[in-house]
Amino acid sequence: MAGSTFGTLFRITTWGESHGKGTGCVVDGCPAGLALCEEDIQKYLDRRRPGQNRYTTKRSEADRVQILSGVFEGKTTGTPISLLVPNEDQHSKDYGNLKDVYRPGHADLGFDAKYGFRDYRGGGRSSGRETIGRVAAGAIAAKILLKMGIQVQAYVSSVGPVRCDPSRYAEANLAEYLSRSSLQMPDPDAEARARAYLDECIRQGDSSGGVVTCIVTGMKAGIGEPVFDKLDALLGQAVFSIGGVKGVEIGDGFAAAEARGSQNNDQYGCKDQDGQTICKSSNHAGGILGGMSDGSEIRIRAAFKPTPSISLPQHALGRDGKVHDLEIRGRHDPLIAPRAAVVVECMTAITLLDLLMRSRSARLEDLI
Amino acid sequence: MAGSTFGTLFRITTWGESHGKGTGCVVDGCPAGLALCEEDIQKYLDRRRPGQNRYTTKRSEADRVQILSGVFEGKTTGTPISLLVPNEDQHSKDYGNLKDVYRPGHADLGFDAKYGFRDYRGGGRSSGRETIGRVAAGAIAAKILLKMGIQVQAYVSSVGPVRCDPSRYAEANLAEYLSRSSLQMPDPDAEARARAYLDECIRQGDSSGGVVTCIVTGMKAGIGEPVFDKLDALLGQAVFSIGGVKGVEIGDGFAAAEARGSQNNDQYGCKDQDGQTICKSSNHAGGILGGMSDGSEIRIRAAFKPTPSISLPQHALGRDGKVHDLEIRGRHDPLIAPRAAVVVECMTAITLLDLLMRSRSARLEDLI
Amino acid sequence: MAGSTFGTLFRITTWGESHGKGTGCVVDGCPAGLALCEEDIQKYLDRRRPGQNRYTTKRSEADRVQILSGVFEGKTTGTPISLLVPNEDQHSKDYGNLKDVYRPGHADLGFDAKYGFRDYRGGGRSSGRETIGRVAAGAIAAKILLKMGIQVQAYVSSVGPVRCDPSRYAEANLAEYLSRSSLQMPDPDAEARARAYLDECIRQGDSSGGVVTCIVTGMKAGIGEPVFDKLDALLGQAVFSIGGVKGVEIGDGFAAAEARGSQNNDQYGCKDQDGQTICKSSNHAGGILGGMSDGSEIRIRAAFKPTPSISLPQHALGRDGKVHDLEIRGRHDPLIAPRAAVVVECMTAITLLDLLMRSRSARLEDLI
Amino acid sequence: MAGSTFGTLFRITTWGESHGKGTGCVVDGCPAGLALCEEDIQKYLDRRRPGQNRYTTKRSEADRVQILSGVFEGKTTGTPISLLVPNEDQHSKDYGNLKDVYRPGHADLGFDAKYGFRDYRGGGRSSGRETIGRVAAGAIAAKILLKMGIQVQAYVSSVGPVRCDPSRYAEANLAEYLSRSSLQMPDPDAEARARAYLDECIRQGDSSGGVVTCIVTGMKAGIGEPVFDKLDALLGQAVFSIGGVKGVEIGDGFAAAEARGSQNNDQYGCKDQDGQTICKSSNHAGGILGGMSDGSEIRIRAAFKPTPSISLPQHALGRDGKVHDLEIRGRHDPLIAPRAAVVVECMTAITLLDLLMRSRSARLEDLI
Repeated sequence: MAGSTFGTLFRITTWGESHGKGTGCVVDGCPAGLALCEEDIQKYLDRRRPGQNRYTTKRSEADRVQILSGVFEGKTTGTPISLLVPNEDQHSKDYGNLKDVYRPGHADLGFDAKYGFRDYRGGGRSSGRETIGRVAAGAIAAKILLKMGIQVQAYVSSVGPVRCDPSRYAEANLAEYLSRSSLQMPDPDAEARARAYLDECIRQGDSSGGVVTCIVTGMKAGIGEPVFDKLDALLGQAVFSIGGVKGVEIGDGFAAAEARGSQNNDQYGCKDQDGQTICKSSNHAGGILGGMSDGSEIRIRAAFKPTPSISLPQHALGRDGKVHDLEIRGRHDPLIAPRAAVVVECMTAITLLDLLMRSRSARLEDLI
Repeated sequence: MAGSTFGTLFRITTWGESHGKGTGCVVDGCPAGLALCEEDIQKYLDRRRPGQNRYTTKRSEADRVQILSGVFEGKTTGTPISLLVPNEDQHSKDYGNLKDVYRPGHADLGFDAKYGFRDYRGGGRSSGRETIGRVAAGAIAAKILLKMGIQVQAYVSSVGPVRCDPSRYAEANLAEYLSRSSLQMPDPDAEARARAYLDECIRQGDSSGGVVTCIVTGMKAGIGEPVFDKLDALLGQAVFSIGGVKGVEIGDGFAAAEARGSQNNDQYGCKDQDGQTICKSSNHAGGILGGMSDGSEIRIRAAFKPTPSISLPQHALGRDGKVHDLEIRGRHDPLIAPRAAVVVECMTAITLLDLLMRSRSARLEDLI
Repeated sequence: MAGSTFGTLFRITTWGESHGKGTGCVVDGCPAGLALCEEDIQKYLDRRRPGQNRYTTKRSEADRVQILSGVFEGKTTGTPISLLVPNEDQHSKDYGNLKDVYRPGHADLGFDAKYGFRDYRGGGRSSGRETIGRVAAGAIAAKILLKMGIQVQAYVSSVGPVRCDPSRYAEANLAEYLSRSSLQMPDPDAEARARAYLDECIRQGDSSGGVVTCIVTGMKAGIGEPVFDKLDALLGQAVFSIGGVKGVEIGDGFAAAEARGSQNNDQYGCKDQDGQTICKSSNHAGGILGGMSDGSEIRIRAAFKPTPSISLPQHALGRDGKVHDLEIRGRHDPLIAPRAAVVVECMTAITLLDLLMRSRSARLEDLI
Repeated sequence: MAGSTFGTLFRITTWGESHGKGTGCVVDGCPAGLALCEEDIQKYLDRRRPGQNRYTTKRSEADRVQILSGVFEGKTTGTPISLLVPNEDQHSKDYGNLKDVYRPGHADLGFDAKYGFRDYRGGGRSSGRETIGRVAAGAIAAKILLKMGIQVQAYVSSVGPVRCDPSRYAEANLAEYLSRSSLQMPDPDAEARARAYLDECIRQGDSSGGVVTCIVTGMKAGIGEPVFDKLDALLGQAVFSIGGVKGVEIGDGFAAAEARGSQNNDQYGCKDQDGQTICKSSNHAGGILGGMSDGSEIRIRAAFKPTPSISLPQHALGRDGKVHDLEIRGRHDPLIAPRAAVVVECMTAITLLDLLMRSRSARLEDLI
């Protein structure tokens, strides 16, 4: 029970279902004195909002956030920030036929096995709308991180079999590339092929998986709390907690398992001029060693499975124990990754900020 | 701070460094009435013990566990179980030259950045010996799971580029295969090639990465606590918290990101005769949907990077900010995976048991 | 940071300030299948609502609760229940003069020392309105407890120097007495004297302290998790977390410190006919021994200090470091206890339910 | 389950029973760089050690602590500190007759109700020896607090009906008074009467309750995390978690409930010369307002019940459901308070340090 809270000092609690009155988040432990308005959060929510192009669900909602508490005269007060996003465009009748069957690839059976019944409308709590609260909270975390010189950015690095070619874009200019990309892919060539691939998927009533890459710059060394709250361990929890993620890699990930030590070890060079940043000749480790940041760029990859809601005929299990033919109606993204990128970014930001806050009493000299 | 505790109801706290007086674990929340003796734990510790063959470090320790509390007349009492494994074979002088340098691929720099200094002997807290406490605790969790009909087993599925061929072994007989394998690979053919590959690595003063696969049978549906304490999210944290892990997959993992929904969705069939187990025609999901078990076998893969301690000359960063030539002495495994398999198994067992215990008040009817 | 969450399996997170847009609570971990509607919660909120008689603040708000999530077709789904109570009757201008001074007996200085500034309107987060979220959550916990045969009831046992005489009322009929009492005192004689005492306090621009007694019937033995999450320890946290509480007693409390063992030990008698309940010839322990329930009635007493907001002239500390004459305007209760009784009741219910849920895997036989 | 861990950033986990192999504690999150040796801890343990005079149990143990991890070259490393105190003088046969009965005033019935059986030797986990781990951890916390200018001191302020007269001693010189007092009472007159009272109790085979007062000087304002982790709430949990505590007061405690606001409000005066400390003309609040420290001395009182183990004949409940005559053998303190004072002191120190560490990211300006 009680799995909807994440974090130790910067702690978020999300709530809400697809077809309830709304979704939201309570952000507890936000440092006081941050200038914060609804627009700061809205621009993150807009990045995950549906209905923006033909590759996202046609469910069309403004997803306008309201700040209900924790901000006074434009600044955070240190007390809990309650964020509310009302639901608007609910077509609950689309889901009546799902009441008594468990769809392939969905949480339906799990919820019934656990709780005895479920809110079957639009996936209920397992809907992608659950991530609204995460994004709202992550927008706050990201704003604080930026003030600390830390930038978190996520993009779609592959769609089905189509992969971005890192030589075709400079990560330093990611924001610019992504502002022009409906699929959040920085390589325009790959995006063109991905669109063609998705068009074919849509035509066939099918869907596609994809990979989101998240990079963090400006992170100092020594952040992360061994041995269970290591930076990679909590990032692992944070990213795997996003619906549809089936794999997470730090740095080279599974490729490291095929490498030799002499290839995989990142040799140190000297410190940067400012004496803070450590130069390494490579970054196979993805910025994390021994569960702590090592001063390099942090690199995370998240594998998203194809949207399980497809139009093709499928077999579902009924509550009656029998197999039923299933035809899924409703509105669904053929690909989760483009809208999930901001969710990965936000969960990463929340994890980093919490660990940065936890690190502030690591040394006796910090206290006295 | 304070990252050495894991779990909510079945909760472990580990302690200990490579060259301190010992390592250990406090297991809090173990259900009362379990028959438990030191031998139950010792047989798990023996599986991670070094010095067993030429592919593991020559550090030779008995690693004998002592139960200091929580067991009375051969049964657990429900109170904390304190487990102690004294350190024995410490060659601390091997490490004097590492005091002022940060080795590539190691946590050295992170610890100094965080705490200002570190216990540099044998990696200190970031040594593989830290996992002793996890394995001791996991042995207890696994014993309880077995009584619930749940079996957790891990094996080495690849060594560097050498992969096991699943058609060459039946997972149902894993224990038998592994009892004959020094590398914990169930495919004897692959193991022969892996040994040749490792021999070459050792000859060159190099090391190799590898992949551990962990499978869980007998798990009922509905276990896991959305949205942050999902089964896959906590497994992600648990497995990523093991030193050297750079990637984690559930089921098809990154391959799912390349698939289409029609391929990746596991179609339901009917329930088993006992009415409990759900038949699916495939298991791309690896037994987890929506963050909860779906009644199928749970499949986890963990990518271990190559041991960073290699004999080849390397460049290290000095505390003085300059680059130093590094020659690593001491005793090191050329490959972590075979000894890490039992650690993955144990962290999985601990995670499952904790979530099973948490699930016991999910329905009102469970309480009244 | 992050102190607004309480509980392990049944976990509440409250938010909201006196003069923000509202207050509320997220209840995570509520068992599924509980029939729940807004009226279930409203009747508890009505007990703490202001404006009911001349002994409470004249701030007049309906305090209508909305259930935003976690309930489907009239039943809890096991997912987070978000509860919202909008603020209505805000006279923020009453508080402008408090911006730069720290009132005696208030949290003003603490908030400024901690966060650098504060929402000074109506006490901000330290307002009594913060308890709305607790009461809303407690109403749910209490409804579940009732289904388990457990009843939690709180009343005002003293007002200033006026104490109820336990021989004048039967606790078995508390609800009936309290329904007739504006001060929530079951002894009508004492209440009459208390009203006279309060009238005098009001006339003099002063306020009064009081004691709330809370009793729990129907609790089975063995609930509570030694050594830090003992039943009395978590009740201690829960009750001390209510604003204005300066003392907490279990059973005889401080009187036990003056007693001898032969007086204070409750001698056991036989079990009740149902074999469940333990008869004791006395209940000095207040139903808790060794941090666990002992099967007897649980008895808690909470000392509330006098409302610090009084009309009499006082000295406040200014942000400028100087002493200022203070005249408090605004609307304030001369006595907290009558409205706080339901808060004590609710925090007790939340604590008990959480520990009851945690106890469900105490024995191996519970799991297998 | 799992109640033996306390704290968020400075986090302790205790283990051990009266007649097991030992007791101990893991201290996780201790800041790095603190000079620490076993003698630092031993001097605190010596204050709770039995066998020191005729008012304590005759069980005679050296209670020598061993530091097993987390300290390197005389300084804490930031990693978990494992502390072990072996048990020595165990007369387990004294307890054979308690196997099947539940003693009045003890946790026996609770443990059996919870776990189905218990380690009945010397109270098992509910023994006073459980506090050894708390004291060992508290010694570390207190050493850090002292470096921050914060001093925590506890003493016995009453024994049964005999109360210390505050006008007879200056709290500023407490340490000196207590060094001369076997009962840890600073008022020599009261101590003489208390000794006479205890002699009479012993003669009659009876025991006595007592009160411990704990004062904290040097605490800055703003520490404590509303609304559930308020300073008084966590102190309440910490102190109530000590065996035998039946009441806790902050400042005036229950006397505040009888007072009027005009009496109970502490009027502010000006700041001290250093501009840090706030002068108040009184300290009825005991240094805590709104759940945060207010810059004044913190004052806590804990009521300890009489030792339940008395020699007088009593009635116990048998596992067979029948009432049995009980004669308690074994070795018991007639009064807990003198040895418990250091436990109150240590739990207070742990709570304060943890909250001080948590407070270090309260403001945005602390982070950037």
